[in-house]
Amino acid sequence: MIKTAIMGYGTIGSGVAEVLEQNKDVIAKQAGQEVELKYVLDLREFPDSPVADKIVHDFKVIEQDEEVQIVVEAMGGLNPAYPFVKACLLAGKHVATSNKALVAAYGTELLAIAREKGVNFLFEASVGGGIPIIRPMYRCLMGERIEEITGILNGTTNFILTKMDKEGESFENALKEAQNLGYAERNPEADVEGHDTCRKIAILTAMATGREVDYEDIYTEGITRITDIDFKYAEKMGTSVKLFGTSRIKDGKVNAFVAPVMIQKNNPLYSVNDVFNGIMVKGNMLGVSMFYGSGAGKLPTASAVVADIIEAAQNLDHNLNIGWSGEKQAIESMDQARFRYFVRVAGSYRNKEQDVKRAFGKVEVVELYGMDEFAVLTSEMSEGEFKAAATAYDSAEQARSDYGIKQMIRAML
Amino acid sequence: MIKTAIMGYGTIGSGVAEVLEQNKDVIAKQAGQEVELKYVLDLREFPDSPVADKIVHDFKVIEQDEEVQIVVEAMGGLNPAYPFVKACLLAGKHVATSNKALVAAYGTELLAIAREKGVNFLFEASVGGGIPIIRPMYRCLMGERIEEITGILNGTTNFILTKMDKEGESFENALKEAQNLGYAERNPEADVEGHDTCRKIAILTAMATGREVDYEDIYTEGITRITDIDFKYAEKMGTSVKLFGTSRIKDGKVNAFVAPVMIQKNNPLYSVNDVFNGIMVKGNMLGVSMFYGSGAGKLPTASAVVADIIEAAQNLDHNLNIGWSGEKQAIESMDQARFRYFVRVAGSYRNKEQDVKRAFGKVEVVELYGMDEFAVLTSEMSEGEFKAAATAYDSAEQARSDYGIKQMIRAML
Repeated sequence: MIKTAIMGYGTIGSGVAEVLEQNKDVIAKQAGQEVELKYVLDLREFPDSPVADKIVHDFKVIEQDEEVQIVVEAMGGLNPAYPFVKACLLAGKHVATSNKALVAAYGTELLAIAREKGVNFLFEASVGGGIPIIRPMYRCLMGERIEEITGILNGTTNFILTKMDKEGESFENALKEAQNLGYAERNPEADVEGHDTCRKIAILTAMATGREVDYEDIYTEGITRITDIDFKYAEKMGTSVKLFGTSRIKDGKVNAFVAPVMIQKNNPLYSVNDVFNGIMVKGNMLGVSMFYGSGAGKLPTASAVVADIIEAAQNLDHNLNIGWSGEKQAIESMDQARFRYFVRVAGSYRNKEQDVKRAFGKVEVVELYGMDEFAVLTSEMSEGEFKAAATAYDSAEQARSDYGIKQMIRAML
Repeated sequence: MIKTAIMGYGTIGSGVAEVLEQNKDVIAKQAGQEVELKYVLDLREFPDSPVADKIVHDFKVIEQDEEVQIVVEAMGGLNPAYPFVKACLLAGKHVATSNKALVAAYGTELLAIAREKGVNFLFEASVGGGIPIIRPMYRCLMGERIEEITGILNGTTNFILTKMDKEGESFENALKEAQNLGYAERNPEADVEGHDTCRKIAILTAMATGREVDYEDIYTEGITRITDIDFKYAEKMGTSVKLFGTSRIKDGKVNAFVAPVMIQKNNPLYSVNDVFNGIMVKGNMLGVSMFYGSGAGKLPTASAVVADIIEAAQNLDHNLNIGWSGEKQAIESMDQARFRYFVRVAGSYRNKEQDVKRAFGKVEVVELYGMDEFAVLTSEMSEGEFKAAATAYDSAEQARSDYGIKQMIRAML
């Protein structure tokens, strides 16, 4: 019998306890022996819960109990998650976590300690909730050179964008609805500003390159400036707008960003709607493969943590050498990333055609009935080239009264 | 250094040789040592190929060379694939195969021999081509009780149905186009009659239950009786028709079938088009998860075989105990499977309403302009109940001239 402990009895922690109990027999069969929950660490008491007699308030009880071989961290945040996880690994215990903030900030150090101590630090649930994605990267795609990872990695923003797309809602109303349904926090910044997606694509990029990725190096833009008018154009164009976390890897160079991107129907991520997540992985031999499912939720996420518990149980006596090293992966400047650009411009195309063509070159024009503006879709160019073109357009136009670029959305069409 | 051999230098076999060469460094890193191709078994010579000096014609060379630890079977068919693979396992060699016919027919015996000999029999590429699905089932979803697997598992039929759906083509024309593009064989029976899908869903069901599944127990119906008229109704209903291989597992009972099924846009498999495959797995804790990608093709399939080679290399000294036992999984009679039914009926609804309602109960009616027929969508019922209802309708109607049920397609709506 293997003994485990769960740190944090919130949504995920209680979900892990539930999965361990509900699927006891399946888990025992796969792990090779029964997995017993010995402790649950939380500041609170849960007198009416099934784990009432397992609650402890002092981390030292877990740290010092040699019987406990696998610890689940489901507290979230960095403190005390980071010191507790570190102490568990140093004490020779395996750790499974669902905490993307922890993995993005301290993954390199925690992986190194796990290697040194011959235990495993596992984090399937930190990206994509219940969707298997971390493990497929080291168990299934291991003969591939990964060339691109593009994911819809945040359910909250995908719900909001889906509402705006399918029901014509404004960003503000869609956000309110997400908050009312409990999909978005009262303070939604981490989701809508793209920070959550940024940490997840940083983790996936580190998995793909084997090198440390500093999430602060990744250009990150959220969805707050996307409007219902953008979706009116998108509808006419047969496109949609999704918040992507993307990494393109070529010859050891990495171009990574988080931003709303305009895509069309033939993109496998086009149909990933509502709170679902989807992660597209492109390998040099495999081509495109996609993983789809619930990116959050108590039981799906808990199921991913339990898969990590089983993996640890199957490899109690050695480190799997997964993850990444301390060598730092350079991320290219966003100016070098290449896109097409959807650009909304004030005025009428008839009056602006010359300036538009001079600044942006060949474009496709999209006009909506009754609007004092129009949109163009540029050819592919680098972000640096686009900025220069936008500046050139502004200079040429600034004397006019109906002047200015009203919107820019990157496009992969 | 690990030495391997490839049996069969056709599309997949030559693809495996290519991936081993192209991604040599990545593979060596993951396998823990270099993987060298020592022999290629084929009746033909390939004097201008990169493996010219590795070609052997005598299987015994591979069987008796103790240096060869991992053998790839990419011959297809059962003979000599079956005796050769069996001999390799008996000689203590690991085997990776892309051959679904072999796995479906002899998997139980080959898995048992592998267990006894302490080697591994791996077959990721036998289902879903390049899509990781076999390995996720034993590496990622191992804490789950699998409740349903539904896959679009055959690229040829999916291409044909997509053409019929999006371009209004007839079955015959869509098949011809598939043949011209090399997606369908001159004798397309294995694909269009559902036999290929049947073997694949049998393998997935055996993985999910841990028991032997006889593919001949699985009700199998192809797409040859699906017409462009069916898709005209589907368009009006906002649905599509896909060839599904499905297994529903509950309390140890399995309901499995291969058949064209009508689905709607919110089904994650709705957007799996052209030659792509998609496999939806439902776990009791995870909920719905989907794997999507290239279901066939030289390099994607070869990449899956290479992932098996790496898995074998990482576990040279022991059997992973994956797959299924010799205990046989009973498959319920198709009469017990439950669906809604899309039924096309001769005549006009005005004249037939009474007989339709008496036979099928509550239905939704769909009428197309200018057709001497109409369609109904029944409530959910078992296949046995549907057969009885269809017989009752026939009896009530048989005296009329515009008589008869023209089409039935199962629906998951």
